[in-house]
Amino acid sequence: MPVGYSELPELSAVAGVRLSAQAAQVRYEGRDDLVVMELAEGSRCAAVFTRNAFCAAPVIVAREHLAQHAPRYLLINSGNANAGTGAPGLDDARRSCAALAKRAGCDAAQVLPFSTGVIGERLPVQRIESALDGALANLSENNWSAAAHAIMTTDTVAKGVSLTLSIDGQTVTLTGMAKGSGMIRPDMATMLAYIATDAAVESSALQNCIQQAVEQSFNRITVDGDTSTNDACVLVATGASGAAVLDDAHPDYPAFCAAVSEVSTRLSQLIVRDGEGATKFVTVRVEGGHDSAECLQVAYTVAHSPLVKTALFASDPNWGRILAAVGRAGLSQLDIEQVELWLDDVCIVRDGGVAQDYTEADGQRVMNQDEILIRIALGRGAASETIWTSDLSHDYVSINADYRS
Amino acid sequence: MPVGYSELPELSAVAGVRLSAQAAQVRYEGRDDLVVMELAEGSRCAAVFTRNAFCAAPVIVAREHLAQHAPRYLLINSGNANAGTGAPGLDDARRSCAALAKRAGCDAAQVLPFSTGVIGERLPVQRIESALDGALANLSENNWSAAAHAIMTTDTVAKGVSLTLSIDGQTVTLTGMAKGSGMIRPDMATMLAYIATDAAVESSALQNCIQQAVEQSFNRITVDGDTSTNDACVLVATGASGAAVLDDAHPDYPAFCAAVSEVSTRLSQLIVRDGEGATKFVTVRVEGGHDSAECLQVAYTVAHSPLVKTALFASDPNWGRILAAVGRAGLSQLDIEQVELWLDDVCIVRDGGVAQDYTEADGQRVMNQDEILIRIALGRGAASETIWTSDLSHDYVSINADYRS
Repeated sequence: MPVGYSELPELSAVAGVRLSAQAAQVRYEGRDDLVVMELAEGSRCAAVFTRNAFCAAPVIVAREHLAQHAPRYLLINSGNANAGTGAPGLDDARRSCAALAKRAGCDAAQVLPFSTGVIGERLPVQRIESALDGALANLSENNWSAAAHAIMTTDTVAKGVSLTLSIDGQTVTLTGMAKGSGMIRPDMATMLAYIATDAAVESSALQNCIQQAVEQSFNRITVDGDTSTNDACVLVATGASGAAVLDDAHPDYPAFCAAVSEVSTRLSQLIVRDGEGATKFVTVRVEGGHDSAECLQVAYTVAHSPLVKTALFASDPNWGRILAAVGRAGLSQLDIEQVELWLDDVCIVRDGGVAQDYTEADGQRVMNQDEILIRIALGRGAASETIWTSDLSHDYVSINADYRS
Repeated sequence: MPVGYSELPELSAVAGVRLSAQAAQVRYEGRDDLVVMELAEGSRCAAVFTRNAFCAAPVIVAREHLAQHAPRYLLINSGNANAGTGAPGLDDARRSCAALAKRAGCDAAQVLPFSTGVIGERLPVQRIESALDGALANLSENNWSAAAHAIMTTDTVAKGVSLTLSIDGQTVTLTGMAKGSGMIRPDMATMLAYIATDAAVESSALQNCIQQAVEQSFNRITVDGDTSTNDACVLVATGASGAAVLDDAHPDYPAFCAAVSEVSTRLSQLIVRDGEGATKFVTVRVEGGHDSAECLQVAYTVAHSPLVKTALFASDPNWGRILAAVGRAGLSQLDIEQVELWLDDVCIVRDGGVAQDYTEADGQRVMNQDEILIRIALGRGAASETIWTSDLSHDYVSINADYRS
């Protein structure tokens, strides 16, 4: 069960986006594992992809296609990542796109492929192809929930969020869905996220918007420090609401960006809440750094420490492990006398040692919570950063030791 | 049970070094947890300490004392790290040294303190002091085994090694002991190591020797990526063998350094073999890098990946996780077509995808072994590096979630 999230809320249709979910038996039996998203003619699409050097075949093909045409279809499968598959994998991704394009009557480059699942196995293109007729026949604006379920891998719950905002007095909708729970880290993770709106947004404004949103959301979460070969986040604006076209000079553009950020942040936090084996949702905030980079350096060292994560799992206020992680984060000339460590409102470390008024009972009270803030004040500057992470439990080991078997 | 090591071998006495182990009830009941090592007058001593910014009180005091005097006593306790204890902790470390010095009739600065165990709790100086008379009364050259047991914390087995070599035709002895099993990482870890020899070695030659040895041994192992606040490695040369004094121009100096490296490497590998919850002993070798730094960058990214470590625990040849770790290691302009991945003698990845002759059965055969070599050839230079690590098991989580309770 995810921390502080129990089930997918109702997701609003977005005019101009139709979806369908199919059981193509890519890997799983008895569940949907293939999603087709159809974007209305004239939709604009912006995307951010993984920075992993071994990026998967669909990422390479999606980047190529996106550079050529405005996409009309997104083709997403779970169960197989089509990564580490070399030239045959690229061919598989291209053949899948071509198969859908042929049936839908568009150019193959108007289809963007996305895959998530096991690395290093050939994509079963034949089985995907066999499911495409059914997929196209079942397209509907009301299939967001089915799609959010079909893209899951080790996720224990489908993830999505909808909200509305007003542009020039006209209501527009944003709906997003995401999958991901392990292999989560900055710079995008085993994470696929799709956000669509019926607002109309000019292309470069749309791209700026998603990049900023990803930087402060999907690039600020970590479950286990591992980044994936397949991460992607796509933002689609269909314009079907009839609202005015936004560019970055429009007075409602900041509000639109804030809404996209809100959807991204909520989806990214859902991924952490559903982190593999997670029993805690942990915010790590580092303040008082010289710059953003060193704040992130400390935050990720703490968030990735297996000793900190197992202490969180045990609800053990073993703050020495947090301090040791701060100490090895590699900051030059860190004055430990200036460092403060807080768990929520409880100050644990001050002046290089335990705070005088700290009691184990206070630390234990915070550690017993499902949601915990670890706040580290470096006392040497004005920069701050916040990231979100989970603990390291027996279930994390079980899930990842058993994933392929 | 450590991987490939079952019990402490017989450790040879080193003329000029007497030890004793006592039960001081620092934390544990019914076991020794305090060691005094007495070094004969005229012994030389060199040491390497943790680089963690939050270094523990005993590290600070040991550094101070070492700068002032040739040490006559090492005072080591397990069960409490005296770290994160601020000014009172420094005072505790100094008082412990003074208490031993008073009874032994030397200067307090001739005692080096070492502590390992829980962080953030005051050292029970009174209980340590109460055990000192017994400790001094029981000093013997034949107590290495008892001492190696007394310094253990989460170790499941005592760790030590002895060897002899010839200097100018005279046989000298080296005996080393170490403790450590979690919080192990480059740049020294929760790791204490003491190596003594009855050879005579000039001071700067002794310091060079231990620094080189540590760099290629204790600084090349990782269990969980966490470095400790307390790490120390000490090399003592008593000169009691009567062998010629070695300086760095002596023809036997290289052989002596090689022997110290051999002892360091064996001790450091024992720490990994006894890594918390370890079921595998894994060598990660990265070849063909531009320089040593990028080889280590890739090696540690692979060795620290929770997904790689859980796959190792499951004996699952899930090489995609290794590839994904290589891809996110941050090497600029990595040409994935040039990268090869091997498990022992089995080539898995070549030309950007699965090697044509690779079979899952071959990968499974290697993964079923207790000792595994992961070899990554980057194909872009002549540098190489080797590190040693372990897997991530349920027992790792249990040990670290239950440590304080």
